[in-house]
Amino acid sequence: MGKKIVIIGGVAAGPKAAARARRLDPEAEITIIEKGKLISYAGCGMPYYLSGEVHKYDLLFETTYGVIRDEDYFWREKGCRVLTRTEAKSIDRDKKEVLVENLETGEKQALPYDKLVLATGAEPFVPPIEGLNLKGVHKLNHPEDAQKIKEMLGAGEGGEAAIIGAGLIGLETADALMKLHMFCSVIELQDQILPGMMDPDMAELLAKKLTDQGIEFYLGHKVLKLEGDEDGNVTTVVTDQGPVDAELVVVAVGVRPNVKLARDAGLVIGDTGAIAVNEYLQTSDPEIYALGDCAETTHLISGKKVFLPMATSANRQGRVVGDNLTGGNTVFKGVLGTAVMHAMGFNVGRTGLGEKQARDLGYKVVTGVFHGFDRTHYHPEHGMVMMKLITEEGTGRILGAQALGLGDAVKRIDVAATAITFNATADQLAEVDLGYAPPFSTPIDVAMHAANIVRNKVAGLAETISVRELKEKMERGDDMVILDVRTEGQFKMRHLKDDRVMLVVLGDLRERINEIPRDKEIVALCALGTRSYEALRILKGAGFKDVKYMEGGLQAWPYEF
Amino acid sequence: MGKKIVIIGGVAAGPKAAARARRLDPEAEITIIEKGKLISYAGCGMPYYLSGEVHKYDLLFETTYGVIRDEDYFWREKGCRVLTRTEAKSIDRDKKEVLVENLETGEKQALPYDKLVLATGAEPFVPPIEGLNLKGVHKLNHPEDAQKIKEMLGAGEGGEAAIIGAGLIGLETADALMKLHMFCSVIELQDQILPGMMDPDMAELLAKKLTDQGIEFYLGHKVLKLEGDEDGNVTTVVTDQGPVDAELVVVAVGVRPNVKLARDAGLVIGDTGAIAVNEYLQTSDPEIYALGDCAETTHLISGKKVFLPMATSANRQGRVVGDNLTGGNTVFKGVLGTAVMHAMGFNVGRTGLGEKQARDLGYKVVTGVFHGFDRTHYHPEHGMVMMKLITEEGTGRILGAQALGLGDAVKRIDVAATAITFNATADQLAEVDLGYAPPFSTPIDVAMHAANIVRNKVAGLAETISVRELKEKMERGDDMVILDVRTEGQFKMRHLKDDRVMLVVLGDLRERINEIPRDKEIVALCALGTRSYEALRILKGAGFKDVKYMEGGLQAWPYEF
Repeated sequence: MGKKIVIIGGVAAGPKAAARARRLDPEAEITIIEKGKLISYAGCGMPYYLSGEVHKYDLLFETTYGVIRDEDYFWREKGCRVLTRTEAKSIDRDKKEVLVENLETGEKQALPYDKLVLATGAEPFVPPIEGLNLKGVHKLNHPEDAQKIKEMLGAGEGGEAAIIGAGLIGLETADALMKLHMFCSVIELQDQILPGMMDPDMAELLAKKLTDQGIEFYLGHKVLKLEGDEDGNVTTVVTDQGPVDAELVVVAVGVRPNVKLARDAGLVIGDTGAIAVNEYLQTSDPEIYALGDCAETTHLISGKKVFLPMATSANRQGRVVGDNLTGGNTVFKGVLGTAVMHAMGFNVGRTGLGEKQARDLGYKVVTGVFHGFDRTHYHPEHGMVMMKLITEEGTGRILGAQALGLGDAVKRIDVAATAITFNATADQLAEVDLGYAPPFSTPIDVAMHAANIVRNKVAGLAETISVRELKEKMERGDDMVILDVRTEGQFKMRHLKDDRVMLVVLGDLRERINEIPRDKEIVALCALGTRSYEALRILKGAGFKDVKYMEGGLQAWPYEF
Repeated sequence: MGKKIVIIGGVAAGPKAAARARRLDPEAEITIIEKGKLISYAGCGMPYYLSGEVHKYDLLFETTYGVIRDEDYFWREKGCRVLTRTEAKSIDRDKKEVLVENLETGEKQALPYDKLVLATGAEPFVPPIEGLNLKGVHKLNHPEDAQKIKEMLGAGEGGEAAIIGAGLIGLETADALMKLHMFCSVIELQDQILPGMMDPDMAELLAKKLTDQGIEFYLGHKVLKLEGDEDGNVTTVVTDQGPVDAELVVVAVGVRPNVKLARDAGLVIGDTGAIAVNEYLQTSDPEIYALGDCAETTHLISGKKVFLPMATSANRQGRVVGDNLTGGNTVFKGVLGTAVMHAMGFNVGRTGLGEKQARDLGYKVVTGVFHGFDRTHYHPEHGMVMMKLITEEGTGRILGAQALGLGDAVKRIDVAATAITFNATADQLAEVDLGYAPPFSTPIDVAMHAANIVRNKVAGLAETISVRELKEKMERGDDMVILDVRTEGQFKMRHLKDDRVMLVVLGDLRERINEIPRDKEIVALCALGTRSYEALRILKGAGFKDVKYMEGGLQAWPYEF
């Protein structure tokens, strides 16, 4: 008789751990318990199914070779028994038994285990407001949620949708609903979009770009309640700053780990609210493992415990738990909090610590912002990427990176995540021999440019100012010259409307340098930041003392012109 | 008076060094000498201009903001003097002078220097054969080459082209000519395509896929001469194995560094044939630097001097030389030999050492081949990638990576290049917290799957066989069972025609395990390699001794079925 392994949770982490354990131990009796009807589904695919990009429901449950991952599949291909519609009610750690209930028949049984795995996942958090039971109010966590929304929308003839929460899922949902010709309002309690994910400056630029695409953001708005008509259909989201019309409301304000079973069994719950585990992913009971969205993990930079539910860690942890269930001794070191997203054509990503996060943790940081093309600008498929690198002052170590744009921001985030994993400095990142050909990148890649900007700042070659800082200086009425060094055509198209703005095309700067007052602060700017850095060097070379350039350029200006 | 800096070569590395030096030293007198008419052009863009993807000649010379990078631009924006159509004839190292000749007027002058930079580039190698002066015979190195071919092709009504050389430029050229509706034959002396770049197994698969797209490869063919008609137009490439018709011939057999000037000046030329430099990119004369395609560099893994002319290193070296010209002390450590390419929809890349290269250098290696999707298979934009990771036996250190496919192979090469830079092991690469969302990747990325396969092999969980090894075994008549574990539908579509093939669908394997002979060698196979690994584990679990699975699966089978 083989070892009895019971796994509670059949979506991502659980099945992965089961499959790995089976491959390592042919004798083990492996049982997966799943409360729902569906197992091993592509949770991250919900917005894409909703939008119709995933055209068939079954695709969310199929292997690459077209076999549905159901109970039969797990039994026949993976050698694991799966009990669906079966809920684990309690754990008797002394007897090493899980009490389970068949939700169809009400039948209960005690499943003995040698090793137990908690992969109970997370549930969407539902704020305590009135009106959540109105028709047209949904969440988007489970394939059935997506199906319900699709049924409600029918042929998709448009309408007004409100999404509560401007996090990753909220924006992916907005993207999907825009594709279904709905008008989308996104209501967010924080004063920025993607509050857990992106720094305020990056979020502000992205919000501007998404607003230009037609999404309306209500930032810093608290939702008070939902109102409906006499038929019980939702009509309005009432916020502290007024009502927002909506015939469809999607609540996407984040998730909470499912820890009740663990807590009831006396297992330690971490300060993050998720199940505490050691590096082997054992809970406070060494015979019980926890992984995936219900367990906490360690942030590789801060060393702190964090709750960062991600499909990537769930899968990697599945391998680790599969090893350790079968006599292995594999460690899960932690995560960088990497997160990436696609919405309205924009690619967005972050890894490591954000600037704000890093400063809050006490780091002194030097950032570098590069804004430019993801591939050679003469190649027809190029797109822009703005990338921000966050490094530690003194050591130069890269703490984090954020990137967004129509171009391939995510490749650069993957490169940064890899570099950060190995404690790279900006100097080192700038020297990585990345691949270059015109359809893929530029001879000096976006990530290397960002690293070079950090190096220039550290070397005292460049001082920068952010778009927000310039805006504040303008509003304060600071005495300065805003030196626009773009071409005349670009200037005519649009420029900052301010008396302090002076146009000197970069190519004329050396000739016209005496026109520029030496006793004033100079803020150089251009479209992306490259020419204004050049201008700064020219002015510095000519003895000007107080010169900065605006990082990201006017293409990163999120305010009115 | 500032320091006199003279830079010979105005294409990529030279202007980059000049611009950086100028930003650091406002006083320096910087002069760039260029033999040709054009400067600072996008050499790598030639195939894309030829194909029409780059629709305007000037795009190859423009900044991102539409300014032509000519002499005037360099003077006005970069503060550097450029002398075009000016050839450096000799260097007088004692007097610290370069003798230059204006090729238009014949006028000569001696330019004094404090620091001299050689960025003389490389020239296409032209094999010593008859017929190179026939009309219709071209190279593709310079914008003017591309223009000449375009003029000759006119409206592009098709025709037959032969490309001599199946290297990176040769295949990019074939891709461009296919887009112009030409029928392309590619003739290569070596017995594989991309001989300097890809391992034979990867090259063989790519050649199969490109052949399916309509390119004809003549591998292992030696070109003897070119023949033409009475009007002097090329008609035929004569090889040692017969003639190949062609009205357009592009010679792309590689480049040689331009070292005559350096050699004549008594500078040390390395064994690679390129100019020898130290880590500061100084030649044997410390007042003279060399960089870009004329200089040798160091391979970061082997530690050996190599000649690997690449736009990436040229640009990174430009920054290093710019620093060091102006009092800096910056080091260029070397390269990984990263190279990437796009042709006929396929993305191809490599970094570090190839398997063959590594073995030739005496490394014992463990490779892992993963073949699968670059993003979630339910996302409509997914494509396949085959990735091979080459690691050092014992240490697990990653020595190199190669990847190809319709999917985003290049992102994974960049991740691998970054990991290799920091001496990552396969274990470490498998744990990098890469970004995941359905439009970008899979929860376990291609690169991590490849690393996991290496880990499984090292742990003794998997033994593999390559497509070529299986083919050889089949031809040798080895006694074995070729266990195809795909679905019946897939098997019907196509399968290996061999008496030793046995179909047992993976899901039936546990039930039917007694039908499989225990005394024979078993080679499991499926479409991509994933199910056959699962089958191997099932068989091993049931006590079978001699089981392997075929890496890459039948999707990687480059032979007839």
